[in-house]
Amino acid sequence: MAPTDPDDPETTPPPEGGAVVAPVDPVEELSKPFTLIDAEDIRDLGGADVAAPVGVDEPLSADELREAWAVLDLDERSDGLRLLEQEDAEELFLSLSGHDQMKLLLHWRPGKRRSWMRLLEPDDAADVIQEAPDDRRAELMALLDEPTRKEVQALLAYEEDEAGGLMNTRYARLRSTMTADEAISYLRRQAKSALETIYYAYVLDAEQKLVGVVSFRDLLTAPPRRFISEFMETDVVRANDEMDQETLSRLFAEQDLTVIPVVDASGVMKGIVTVDDIVDVVQEEATEDAQKFGGMAALEQPYLESGVGQMVQARGVWLTVLLIGQMLTATVIGYFQGQIEKAAVLSVFMPLVISSGGNSGSQASTLVIRAMALGEIRLRDWWRVLRREILTGALLGVGLGVFGLLRVALWPGASRSYGEHYVLLGFTVGISLIAAVIFGTLAGAMLPFVLKKLGADPASASAPAVATLSDVTGLLIYFSVATAILTGSML
Amino acid sequence: MAPTDPDDPETTPPPEGGAVVAPVDPVEELSKPFTLIDAEDIRDLGGADVAAPVGVDEPLSADELREAWAVLDLDERSDGLRLLEQEDAEELFLSLSGHDQMKLLLHWRPGKRRSWMRLLEPDDAADVIQEAPDDRRAELMALLDEPTRKEVQALLAYEEDEAGGLMNTRYARLRSTMTADEAISYLRRQAKSALETIYYAYVLDAEQKLVGVVSFRDLLTAPPRRFISEFMETDVVRANDEMDQETLSRLFAEQDLTVIPVVDASGVMKGIVTVDDIVDVVQEEATEDAQKFGGMAALEQPYLESGVGQMVQARGVWLTVLLIGQMLTATVIGYFQGQIEKAAVLSVFMPLVISSGGNSGSQASTLVIRAMALGEIRLRDWWRVLRREILTGALLGVGLGVFGLLRVALWPGASRSYGEHYVLLGFTVGISLIAAVIFGTLAGAMLPFVLKKLGADPASASAPAVATLSDVTGLLIYFSVATAILTGSML
Repeated sequence: MAPTDPDDPETTPPPEGGAVVAPVDPVEELSKPFTLIDAEDIRDLGGADVAAPVGVDEPLSADELREAWAVLDLDERSDGLRLLEQEDAEELFLSLSGHDQMKLLLHWRPGKRRSWMRLLEPDDAADVIQEAPDDRRAELMALLDEPTRKEVQALLAYEEDEAGGLMNTRYARLRSTMTADEAISYLRRQAKSALETIYYAYVLDAEQKLVGVVSFRDLLTAPPRRFISEFMETDVVRANDEMDQETLSRLFAEQDLTVIPVVDASGVMKGIVTVDDIVDVVQEEATEDAQKFGGMAALEQPYLESGVGQMVQARGVWLTVLLIGQMLTATVIGYFQGQIEKAAVLSVFMPLVISSGGNSGSQASTLVIRAMALGEIRLRDWWRVLRREILTGALLGVGLGVFGLLRVALWPGASRSYGEHYVLLGFTVGISLIAAVIFGTLAGAMLPFVLKKLGADPASASAPAVATLSDVTGLLIYFSVATAILTGSML
Repeated sequence: MAPTDPDDPETTPPPEGGAVVAPVDPVEELSKPFTLIDAEDIRDLGGADVAAPVGVDEPLSADELREAWAVLDLDERSDGLRLLEQEDAEELFLSLSGHDQMKLLLHWRPGKRRSWMRLLEPDDAADVIQEAPDDRRAELMALLDEPTRKEVQALLAYEEDEAGGLMNTRYARLRSTMTADEAISYLRRQAKSALETIYYAYVLDAEQKLVGVVSFRDLLTAPPRRFISEFMETDVVRANDEMDQETLSRLFAEQDLTVIPVVDASGVMKGIVTVDDIVDVVQEEATEDAQKFGGMAALEQPYLESGVGQMVQARGVWLTVLLIGQMLTATVIGYFQGQIEKAAVLSVFMPLVISSGGNSGSQASTLVIRAMALGEIRLRDWWRVLRREILTGALLGVGLGVFGLLRVALWPGASRSYGEHYVLLGFTVGISLIAAVIFGTLAGAMLPFVLKKLGADPASASAPAVATLSDVTGLLIYFSVATAILTGSML
């Protein structure tokens, strides 16, 4: 299995003293012309005869490489792995994300690619294939041996973000008619196998349906001659193979489990999901939600690895949509332009009023989106949330409204700056703030429910989207209040 | 250990047919006057003689209670637990968050409180005590038995969010001079003990320093007579006891480990942290970051459990700070009020320009904050991020600028709405958009670095904070560009 290929110049250990990949201030696309000379170039220039740059003549350690990983480009990563001990290189490779593994595999020449691809467990191989561009998938699949290929094909039938797509098919099975002692001997013989874990073993009936689970610890504490059926846990927490990863991660968090078995609709056991994979899933989901809430499409790759083109696309689409939304503010103000011509001072407090609505909306939507992601709030709780937010919004609105009124009415030189009717203007600002904050709060709290009800992601109730909605409404509120209060004095 | 107390009416199983806690449309503080009659009331009214409400005469299952948990109040939770089988109730109780456990314990009368408190492992007991109000901590601590109290006291010396505060002190220890077979027998005898896990055992020297680790699986595959010292893994991934939980969760994610040992500065082993606790930590950190990014103080409790008072405080403080920031917009517009008096149409595009800056800033800050939380970007990467964002911001700005120009210049009836110089106004809007988007992008991308450098949480570079900063600057940009382009025509 060791993917060392003596004919491959890339996997030949470098000459002594030639460990020259420097993770110092690594470079990226923007600065390519200024790139440091790297190991490859040095070898081209004469190999080991060229002195290594000062400070980088120490051999690279796996930890150093891991530490620098995020900021290295593909060539540097490949070079780095080559300079490690084979065992360290394999360990590091196996701990990488499917995306990083895929990039490296496609970067390497076919001979090297095969041996590294075969290091992967079926679930990890399936991830790599899912990450690969459509036109490269068959090629990667062909690198696997026959039994693994079959397992990977079964896994690929699942979506990447559902339990079936996360599971490992190499789990320990027992029959309920075994004794504790027989089970221990059996699992002990499996200790060297490729099973994901021997610490939990699943009891299946003749139709492969899951009927129980025992931990290795249970087996050790059970009387040796007792049958598994007598002490196995039959009330097994299980995931359906189509359960989405967000629900699955909540199941892990609630049940404090290390492993959860995955079954299909008829109860047939398909594989296991382990909690260490769930940590990645939780991070990934939180990142996607955060990016959506920040008002953009979720990136598929880490920030520094996303090209500027992808970045502009993920952000530009939403910025344009929001700009179109913001054009409604121009329409509203255009409609009230006559008022501004009469009293230009009205425009002074416009951004203050509307942005307070947006800010309170952004708070409310972040609370609701996050509580939904954690399963604390479900669709049917909308009415409880609405009641809470009406009260909260009203209290916040009155607080800000009074503050706004005082800001205008007590400002030194208010009558000079804002005209003789400055107290009325203060009331206009204060009352508008109350209404804008209440509206913003309710819009922010309810929009995630509306989106969820429509089958969209609640996290799309982003801060900028709520702010845009609040801006348009806030302007209508502000000019309506101004018309009501100031007609006859300023207007 | 079974905390059943026959003298306690609260732990007496209810009479048959009396299982009447209904998780149907549960209620909260706002609607207290409309609360359903609950089990307690029914018993007061005559116990089992009162007919159970329709549809709730089935005994409550642990899963049903768990499902409804988030929306139940304290009384309903306590009632629900009482109606379960003792074993199910204990299992559910142990899977609760420290906060929920603390609430229940303090809700129960002292006799019941003691027996349930003693169910907890030292690390969980420490969590409960940390969650309790200051004036109740000594009381809870006094409920523990002597050895556990000592362990809990040691744990309480750590912050809740560092490795030492998350660890379990009940781990398996081995000496390096044991053989594989001896180690297996030893661990086998520990299988019934309160050790957190027997699947990983830590090898300590005479000074309790961590020198190696073996898994149970390693022991099973090793030749029985071989000494632990000959095959233990000596390059142990470990956490310092003061490592913060965010770094610790990254360590778990990177290394794909299930358990990580915690050592103090001198290498003495203090305990272990298991990955199932880390799932909670990751969720908690993501929630805190999301709430901060939404422009508020992080809540300490789940949304539905936070009182309206706490909520108003967490949100009100930041809304007020932002309102004060927004007052700068009033100052800026006040300064340019003369321009608006000459050309009221200028005010029409004000919100559109400034909010585009805020939206692009919110995108950039969410990307940077999240990448920092995941360890993809460190403080020293600021220059790489800045270069990327200058390019991205410029491309986005030009795109939106051209769009804005066309919106004004090609609008049907533009000359009627915006006056004869509408093309110049279009250029004013377009150029301002470019500058505002570039500024917003850079401010959003750099603010998290500034906050981190100052030792503050980068997540405080919230969407509303970046928007406020962009609003003030956007107005300066807009009026400056207008003055430059429109003086002599509109102005």
